[in-house]
Amino acid sequence: MIKITFPDGSVREFPKGTTSMQIAESISSRLAQDVLASSVNGQTWDLTRPIEEDSTVSLLKWDDTEGKHAFWHSSAHLMAEAVQELYPHAKFGIGPAIENGFYYDIDFGDTPVKDAEFAAIEKKMKDLIAQKEEIVRKSISKNDALRLFGDRDEGYKVELINDLEDGTITTYTQGSFTDLCRGPHLPNTSYIKAVKILSAAGAYWRGDEKRKQLTRLYGITFPKQKMLDEYLVLLEEAKKRDHRKIGKELELFAFSENVGKGLPLWLPRGTQLRLRLEDFLKQIQKKFDYQQVMTPHIGSKQLYVTSGHYAKYGKDSFQPINTPEEGEEFLLKPMNCPHHCEIYKVVPRSYKDLPLRLAEFGTVYRYEQSGELHGLTRVRGFTQDDAHIFCTPDQLKAEFLKVVDIIFIIFKALDFENFEAQISLRDPNNREKYIGTDENWEKAERAIIEACEEKGLPARVELGEAAFYGPKLDFMVKDAIGRRWQLGTIQVDYNLPERFGLEYNGADNQKHCPVMIHRAPFGSMERFIAVLIEHTAGKFPLWLTPDQVVILAISEKFNDYAHRVSAFLKSKDIRSQVDDRNEKIGRKIRDNELKRIPYLLIVGEKEAESEEVSVRKQGEGDKGSMKFTTFADQITEEVDKMMNAWNH
Amino acid sequence: MIKITFPDGSVREFPKGTTSMQIAESISSRLAQDVLASSVNGQTWDLTRPIEEDSTVSLLKWDDTEGKHAFWHSSAHLMAEAVQELYPHAKFGIGPAIENGFYYDIDFGDTPVKDAEFAAIEKKMKDLIAQKEEIVRKSISKNDALRLFGDRDEGYKVELINDLEDGTITTYTQGSFTDLCRGPHLPNTSYIKAVKILSAAGAYWRGDEKRKQLTRLYGITFPKQKMLDEYLVLLEEAKKRDHRKIGKELELFAFSENVGKGLPLWLPRGTQLRLRLEDFLKQIQKKFDYQQVMTPHIGSKQLYVTSGHYAKYGKDSFQPINTPEEGEEFLLKPMNCPHHCEIYKVVPRSYKDLPLRLAEFGTVYRYEQSGELHGLTRVRGFTQDDAHIFCTPDQLKAEFLKVVDIIFIIFKALDFENFEAQISLRDPNNREKYIGTDENWEKAERAIIEACEEKGLPARVELGEAAFYGPKLDFMVKDAIGRRWQLGTIQVDYNLPERFGLEYNGADNQKHCPVMIHRAPFGSMERFIAVLIEHTAGKFPLWLTPDQVVILAISEKFNDYAHRVSAFLKSKDIRSQVDDRNEKIGRKIRDNELKRIPYLLIVGEKEAESEEVSVRKQGEGDKGSMKFTTFADQITEEVDKMMNAWNH
Repeated sequence: MIKITFPDGSVREFPKGTTSMQIAESISSRLAQDVLASSVNGQTWDLTRPIEEDSTVSLLKWDDTEGKHAFWHSSAHLMAEAVQELYPHAKFGIGPAIENGFYYDIDFGDTPVKDAEFAAIEKKMKDLIAQKEEIVRKSISKNDALRLFGDRDEGYKVELINDLEDGTITTYTQGSFTDLCRGPHLPNTSYIKAVKILSAAGAYWRGDEKRKQLTRLYGITFPKQKMLDEYLVLLEEAKKRDHRKIGKELELFAFSENVGKGLPLWLPRGTQLRLRLEDFLKQIQKKFDYQQVMTPHIGSKQLYVTSGHYAKYGKDSFQPINTPEEGEEFLLKPMNCPHHCEIYKVVPRSYKDLPLRLAEFGTVYRYEQSGELHGLTRVRGFTQDDAHIFCTPDQLKAEFLKVVDIIFIIFKALDFENFEAQISLRDPNNREKYIGTDENWEKAERAIIEACEEKGLPARVELGEAAFYGPKLDFMVKDAIGRRWQLGTIQVDYNLPERFGLEYNGADNQKHCPVMIHRAPFGSMERFIAVLIEHTAGKFPLWLTPDQVVILAISEKFNDYAHRVSAFLKSKDIRSQVDDRNEKIGRKIRDNELKRIPYLLIVGEKEAESEEVSVRKQGEGDKGSMKFTTFADQITEEVDKMMNAWNH
Repeated sequence: MIKITFPDGSVREFPKGTTSMQIAESISSRLAQDVLASSVNGQTWDLTRPIEEDSTVSLLKWDDTEGKHAFWHSSAHLMAEAVQELYPHAKFGIGPAIENGFYYDIDFGDTPVKDAEFAAIEKKMKDLIAQKEEIVRKSISKNDALRLFGDRDEGYKVELINDLEDGTITTYTQGSFTDLCRGPHLPNTSYIKAVKILSAAGAYWRGDEKRKQLTRLYGITFPKQKMLDEYLVLLEEAKKRDHRKIGKELELFAFSENVGKGLPLWLPRGTQLRLRLEDFLKQIQKKFDYQQVMTPHIGSKQLYVTSGHYAKYGKDSFQPINTPEEGEEFLLKPMNCPHHCEIYKVVPRSYKDLPLRLAEFGTVYRYEQSGELHGLTRVRGFTQDDAHIFCTPDQLKAEFLKVVDIIFIIFKALDFENFEAQISLRDPNNREKYIGTDENWEKAERAIIEACEEKGLPARVELGEAAFYGPKLDFMVKDAIGRRWQLGTIQVDYNLPERFGLEYNGADNQKHCPVMIHRAPFGSMERFIAVLIEHTAGKFPLWLTPDQVVILAISEKFNDYAHRVSAFLKSKDIRSQVDDRNEKIGRKIRDNELKRIPYLLIVGEKEAESEEVSVRKQGEGDKGSMKFTTFADQITEEVDKMMNAWNH
C-alpha cells in the first residue's frame, strides 16, 4: 500500500500502482468524469499513469490551467492525427497548448492548407473522437526514438530528438499517430466533445527566418459543444472590440515601421483622451498629497547595477547607449524607481517629511521580441502612472490602504465594477530569485495581507509571483465580455531603499531606512487605454471621450445655426463639432454613430427658429428637442457628476 | 594705387601697401581711435598690416565680435608677458579670446599661481601697457619656429608647431614676449585701459586627462575703466542670480552623478512651476487650434537617415541602441519633427485639413561633452515646447504671423519686455552645407523676411546661421541685468516634407507637398526656466511661483488659526503653506523672504480675533491688515489678471 496526501491535508491508502483515475473513481463517479490530469508531487501526470510510492496528489479539472492544458495538448495531437490521415505527406514540427486552445506547426509541402479545408479536418477529428482512441504513453531510448521518427521520415522530430540529452524519451500514441511528447495527456480522445480549427499562419521552423516556413494551424476544443458556441460568440465580439481596429477607426493612435515596432504614436484624439485620464489621476493625487516630479528617460548603467535591474534584465533589454568620446554608458530607463530614489537623496530627510509621495507619468522602455508585440497591450515603450511612497514602517499599512482607495476611485470612474485582487508572494522554495533579506520580505508580505484584510478586499494569494524586489498586490478587472485583464498594481519594497542607502532622521535622532511603495493604478497608460477601448467598444464615458457632441444640419441652409450652437457649446468647455458635409441626414447620423459620438444634435428650420436642438443619445436614440442652452447645462452637469463623484 | 571697397559699396583708391589704420585715419581721427582690427576680403587682419591689392575692407570696433576678440587676444598675450616676467620658469600652452575675456593655459611648475598673486600680475600688465609696447607680426618657416621656441624651452609650443602643416608660420612679439599666433592683434599694448584677472582653474594639456594639468588663468580687459567696473558689478549680480544656486536654494531641480551628467531631475517645486508654464502655453495653443500629440523618445536609425539628422549629427551623438536579438538600431530622439511627419502620414490629408498644427512637449536627447554642460542651459536631455505646423504655401505667412503672436504673448506674460529678433539665412557662399533646393530656400527665406516686415518686427539678418534644413527667426531676450539670451525660435522648412514624402490633396485634386513650420516659443523648458530664474532672481510672477503665500504665527498659540487660514486659501486654489516652526517671528520672516515667497501673512491674537491677516508683500513690505477672505479675493484677482491678459 502507498499513502496518498490530498490538497486539504487528508491522507488515504491505496494499492501500489494505483492510477489517478482510480483515485478519482474511489471518491466519486462524477469527479472521475470531470478530471483531466493530475498533479503528483508537483508534476503534472497522465490520469492513467501508475503511482508507485507515497505521493501528494491533486486532481486537475477544466478550471485548473494544467487540466485545460492537458486537454488542449491532446487536442493538438488529435488535429495532427487527422492531418496525417488526410495529408499523408505532411511533416510535423511542434504542437503545444496555448492560452486559448492549441496549435501545430506542420509542413504541408508545396501547397499549404486552405481555410476551406478546415471543415474536412474537423470532420476527421470528430471521426477519431468517435473511435474513442486510447492515448498511450511509452518510454523509449534516444536511439529507438531516432529510429522510429527517422523511419517515418519526420525530419523535424529527428532534429528535436538530436537536441535532447541522452536518457529516456517519452512518446504518446493514439491510433496510427505517434508523437514525441513529454505529456501529460487525456486517457482517450472521447473526452473532446467540440472542435474548431480557427486559423492558419506562417511560422518559421524554430522561429528562425532562415529556416523553412511551416503552417501554424490554430484550433480550440471543449468538453461541451455549448462552451465552444459561447467561445465563438465571444471571439466574434472580441474582434469587434479589438483596440487596434477601434484605435484606427477613431484615430486614437498609430504605429509606424519607420519609427519602430511597438512604439505608439498618439494621435490628437488619443492624446486628448490620455491626457484627460492623466489629469483625472493628477487631481486625485493632489487631494492625497502626492507631488509630481519629472526625470529623464535614460540613466547611467551604474544606476541600474545599484538597483539590481541590470543584473536581472540587462542582457535581454535594449542595449547600452554609448557616448562618442567619454566612454559613458546609459540605459533607456526600464523603471522610474531608481530616479525617484535619487530625488529622495537630494536633501536630507526627517521623519517629519514622511510620507513623501513622488508621482510621475514616466515613460519607460523595455525590449520585447517583435513577435510578442500586440497593439497597445504589448509595446516597447509605455508610460506608467507611477508613484513611489517613501514612509516609515509604522506608516506602511495606512499608506497602502490609501493607495487601495485611489485604485477603487479609478475603477469606479471608469465602470470597471468587476475586479479581483491577487497577492503575489515569494516562491518559498526558490528564495535566491529575489533580492533582500528574509526579514524584510516577511515584513512586506505581512503588511499587504493585513491591509487586504482590513479593507475587506478578497484576494487570491499566489506564491512565486512577486517582483524580484518585493511582494505585490495586483488588480484584475473583468471587462464587458467577461475577459480578465491585469491592471493596477501596488508593491511593497524594503530592498531598493537599502540598495540606494536611503535614510531619514527619526524622532529618536537616529538614521533609519524608509520603506517604499511602488504603485500604478492604471498600470500603464497604453495598456489601460487598450483595455478601456475593448471594455467600452470605443464608447467612452462622456467626461473622457474626445468628441462629446456632433451637430448635424438637415440641409446646408442650417449649417450657420449649427456652427453657432457649436461655438456656444465650446465656450462652455463642451467638446463639439459640426458635420457640415453636403450629405443626407441619414448618412450623417450613421457616420457619426460609427464614430461613437455620445450626443448627436440635429438642427433644421424648426430648431433654428426656436433656438433648440433635437437630441439623439448614443444607445438610447431620440430624446426630443430642447433649448441648446438647456442641453449645455445638462451635459455640464452630467460630466461634473461623473468627474467629481469620488470627491464627495 | 589699389581700390578699396567699403561695406556700403563705396570705393576709394589708396597707395599700394596702405594699412587699415591709415585707411581709418583718412576717414576720421575719431574712427582711428576706435578701430581695433579690420576685415580684409573676409579675413580678420592687423590694423598695421599692409594691403597690397584691390580689397574689400571693413573696419572693426569694440562692438564687432572680431574687433573685441582681437582686443582680448592681445590681452591674453599681455597677461602671458606679465607672467613670464614674474615667473621666469613658466611655460605656455594656448591663450585664446573667449565669449567674455580670455584665458591662457600656463605650466607654473610645482607651485600653481594663487589668487593672492593676481594683483601682482595685474600690476605688471599695467606697467607693460604704460610702455606702449608695439605688437609685431612676423612670418617665419616651420624650422625657424621650432628652433625659436626650442631655444626658449617652450615644449608645449614645439608640440603645437610640429602638428602644423609645413609652410609659413606667424609669430607676434611685444617686448620680450614672442608667441606662436595666427593673430590678428592690436597695434600696441596701450589700447588696453582696464585689466582684471578673474580666476584660475585646472585644465589638462590639450584636454587629455592623461597629459599634464596646467593652470588656466582667466582674465578680462576693456578699453575703459568704467566698462570694467560695470562688468564686475554685473558679474557679482550674475553670481547672485545664478540659476544653479537659486535652483538649489528653492529646491527646483537637481543633478545626480548616479543618473548621469546633464540629465536634470525636476524636484516637486520645479515640476509644479514647469507644468504651470506648460499649461499656460497649452491654453494659448488650444485657442490657436493646435492639437497635442505624444511620440516615443526613440526612433529607428532609418528615421533619422531619412530626415538627414543622422548624416549631420550621427557620429557626434549618443550612439545607437541595439536590440538583443533582432539587430534593430534605435536612436534617442534628437528632434521631434520626424515623429510628427510620421503622424502626418497616418491618414491621407486634404487641403481642407490644413493647417495641421501638431504640438508636443517633447523631450529630446543630444550628446554634449561633459565639460560643456552648464546647469539647465546646456544639458543632455531637454524638453522642447515643440510644434510643427503643416500648411499650404499660401497659408505660410499667416501661420508664421500667428506664431509670432504666441511668442509675444509668452514674453509679455513673463516680463521679458526687452527682446530682439534675428533672421538666420543660408551662407550664400557655402550652400552645400544645407539640404534642399535653392528654390525652396528662397521661398522660405522670403516668407520670414516678409512676415517680419508685416509685423513691424525689427530683426537683424545673419547669413550662415540657418538650420541645415531651413531658415529661421530667433528671439533674443535681454534679462534684468542686461544679458542677452536666445529663447524662442520659428523655422520654415520646405525640405523635411519632401524627404518624408508628405502630401495633401489640393483643391485642384492634385497631390502637393505641404510646407512645415517648426516652432518653440520657450525654446526648451530647461533653458527657459534657467533664464527666467536669472531674470527674476527667483522672484517668479505670482501666477507661476510654487508657493504664493506662507502664514507665520507670532507664537505657537496661533498655529491653529494659521492652519485654518491656509486651508481656506487652498480651497480657493491659492498655494499656501504654514511656517509652524517654533522660531521667533523675525527669523521666520527672514527665512521665508529668502525663499522668495510673494506674500507673508502674519497672524497673532488681534488677527485671530478679527479673522484678519497682516500682509507683507515681497519687495514692498507691510501692506496692513485685512480679512483673510478679502486677501483671498485680491490674490485670485491678481492671478486671473496675469494669466488671462492675453485672452482679452
